[in-house]
Amino acid sequence: MTTEDTSAADATREGMKTVGFSFELQTQVGNARAGILHTPRGDILTPAFMPVGTLGSVKSLAPTDLRAEPIDAKIILGNTYHLYLRPGLDVIEDHGGLHEFMKWERPILTDSGGFQVFSLAQDNRIDDDGVTFQSHIDGSKHRLTPEVSMHIQSVLGSDIAMVFDQCPPAESAPRDHDVAMRRTTAWAKRCAQVERPAGQALFGIVQGGLDVERRLAHLAELVAIGFDGYAIGGLSVGEPPPEMYRVLGGVAHKLPPANPRYLMGVGTPADLYEGVVSGIDMFDCVMPTRNARGGTLFTSEGKVQMRNAKFRRDTGPLDPQCTCYTCTTFSRSYLRHLLKAKELLFSRLATIHNLSYYAQHMRGMRQAILEGREPRPLP
Amino acid sequence: MTTEDTSAADATREGMKTVGFSFELQTQVGNARAGILHTPRGDILTPAFMPVGTLGSVKSLAPTDLRAEPIDAKIILGNTYHLYLRPGLDVIEDHGGLHEFMKWERPILTDSGGFQVFSLAQDNRIDDDGVTFQSHIDGSKHRLTPEVSMHIQSVLGSDIAMVFDQCPPAESAPRDHDVAMRRTTAWAKRCAQVERPAGQALFGIVQGGLDVERRLAHLAELVAIGFDGYAIGGLSVGEPPPEMYRVLGGVAHKLPPANPRYLMGVGTPADLYEGVVSGIDMFDCVMPTRNARGGTLFTSEGKVQMRNAKFRRDTGPLDPQCTCYTCTTFSRSYLRHLLKAKELLFSRLATIHNLSYYAQHMRGMRQAILEGREPRPLP
Repeated sequence: MTTEDTSAADATREGMKTVGFSFELQTQVGNARAGILHTPRGDILTPAFMPVGTLGSVKSLAPTDLRAEPIDAKIILGNTYHLYLRPGLDVIEDHGGLHEFMKWERPILTDSGGFQVFSLAQDNRIDDDGVTFQSHIDGSKHRLTPEVSMHIQSVLGSDIAMVFDQCPPAESAPRDHDVAMRRTTAWAKRCAQVERPAGQALFGIVQGGLDVERRLAHLAELVAIGFDGYAIGGLSVGEPPPEMYRVLGGVAHKLPPANPRYLMGVGTPADLYEGVVSGIDMFDCVMPTRNARGGTLFTSEGKVQMRNAKFRRDTGPLDPQCTCYTCTTFSRSYLRHLLKAKELLFSRLATIHNLSYYAQHMRGMRQAILEGREPRPLP
Repeated sequence: MTTEDTSAADATREGMKTVGFSFELQTQVGNARAGILHTPRGDILTPAFMPVGTLGSVKSLAPTDLRAEPIDAKIILGNTYHLYLRPGLDVIEDHGGLHEFMKWERPILTDSGGFQVFSLAQDNRIDDDGVTFQSHIDGSKHRLTPEVSMHIQSVLGSDIAMVFDQCPPAESAPRDHDVAMRRTTAWAKRCAQVERPAGQALFGIVQGGLDVERRLAHLAELVAIGFDGYAIGGLSVGEPPPEMYRVLGGVAHKLPPANPRYLMGVGTPADLYEGVVSGIDMFDCVMPTRNARGGTLFTSEGKVQMRNAKFRRDTGPLDPQCTCYTCTTFSRSYLRHLLKAKELLFSRLATIHNLSYYAQHMRGMRQAILEGREPRPLP
């Protein structure tokens, strides 16, 4: 192999390989990056937060809500495990994919189902080939392998697919992390070998628990395979935040700079800040949407629980600094009333606000980076 | 009293008396009427269906949903009993009224609380002065009288208030109906004597069960007092539809022609048709909104239950003839999936459709009347 051959091989591993995708790094401040992830279905300005649409809807919102300012989501997430069980692949296939099913024409990222199989499914049995599990809905038996996960994601027609990985609990023994890493690498290789539909990129997932050295070793294995983007999995699974931040600080900026970097399932507004300054470009988490439905809302003055009696006669806006429909229209008193009276409208208004808060947070950090400033944390 | 005096007295009883309100009868076909109810907060094209906003929201919808075509609700209903208990009058007063509380700037009609006190409250004790009852939420003791009901409605600041009435079950003995009528007349008189805020009209309520003669006798008592509009209460409370239609046919067209006529708490699309051809101008009912949340949707091909397995892979629109957001955007298959998966979005999409169906039905009947045609029933 000549030097030229080697650099050619290297070149194929640099940046995004799938046709129609490219990652444009605009500016960097420290490790924090502002960029544009170009996809066939549109550009994603990074750092970006991806609202989670578990079952074919971002809970309580319609596509029009997600496209409206200030949420203006450029990409959302769909869950392979959930959609495979309900409504089932035949139904999604009838619609020509998840985009048409849920009427969302912008990019969608699908997870591989791995995380849910281990966290939700009953009686899961893992072997080197895949996982056999029972549905958490009706106990029916199913099997997921790297190939099956890729097949499901191809039917869903997501713009970004994730490799099927094993995510062990953070407190697992080093030996268990090694087994998970070995499996995740083998499965990642198998996922990469599956032919994908046109316009679908594939991201690898770095495992390795809370040990930075183990993480970097795993990263090297994934980079050797070559993916369109690299994700950090297995964080925010019970460890204290400082532990997560330590791992992020040691790993995120080592992910290939020419590719988008995605921190899976994280987190609080403070976590997003730590992720961004560590070099992460993309995030997803159910926190803003799930918290919203329970009445916990993020504001520029900190987190509030709308049930609190102090809001009973508070005619002011939820967050005076927020430009979302909820904050520019209704009073805290009205929102508390809707929550207490279990009115369905509350979930929608609260979700609109929390996702707007997250979007504005990400946009603020992006703007700072573009202007050469350090991003700032939000409450 | 001279003849002139008499006609002057008659004139004060003709049409709507409250400043800012007038009813314009545009056309009549048989007993069916097309008109415009002019109010300080805007015109209401009749016949009109009023969506019910029990607790300060039309369940699952925001004001923007209600204003959007084809719902484009010109007036909605609020429930005095519910809003008095939750959030409580002090909260509504802080906002300067229900319009500002729920951010609905178009007209609102409030019921008097009578119906809910008898149907929802526990341990209600009625006497000639009013009703003592226990809250269905926390068992706390409260008392409603005509004066209290009018006070609550003045704080709510509704555009149309209703007199406090007693609504006995349809199957009550004639003697009980006579007692209820006597009380409702006495209470109506007391309500009419209470000073109302500027821009609030007051409607009387005709009781009398299923006996047309008794209804007409009661109507005469109310007309003698003189109201801005006249409602028919105590129908659709368990009697067979043909019985209701018989009473409607005998009573509705006898309501003063220069005033709006309102059939309370009714009903199915077929009921709306029967009401309109009998001479009714305004309707309200929880049926379209409540049915929607349960998955029962009204379509041009008849009522459907979205849980039905036949919709599982049906990629067609819910109702091809409907122009609402739900029908022009999503498939039956997607709607069924949302319902089965208990996704909150279902309630909103289903409610948007059912209210659109009702609005389109009313608009169709209005158009027919304006063109001199008989209105036609819908499934």
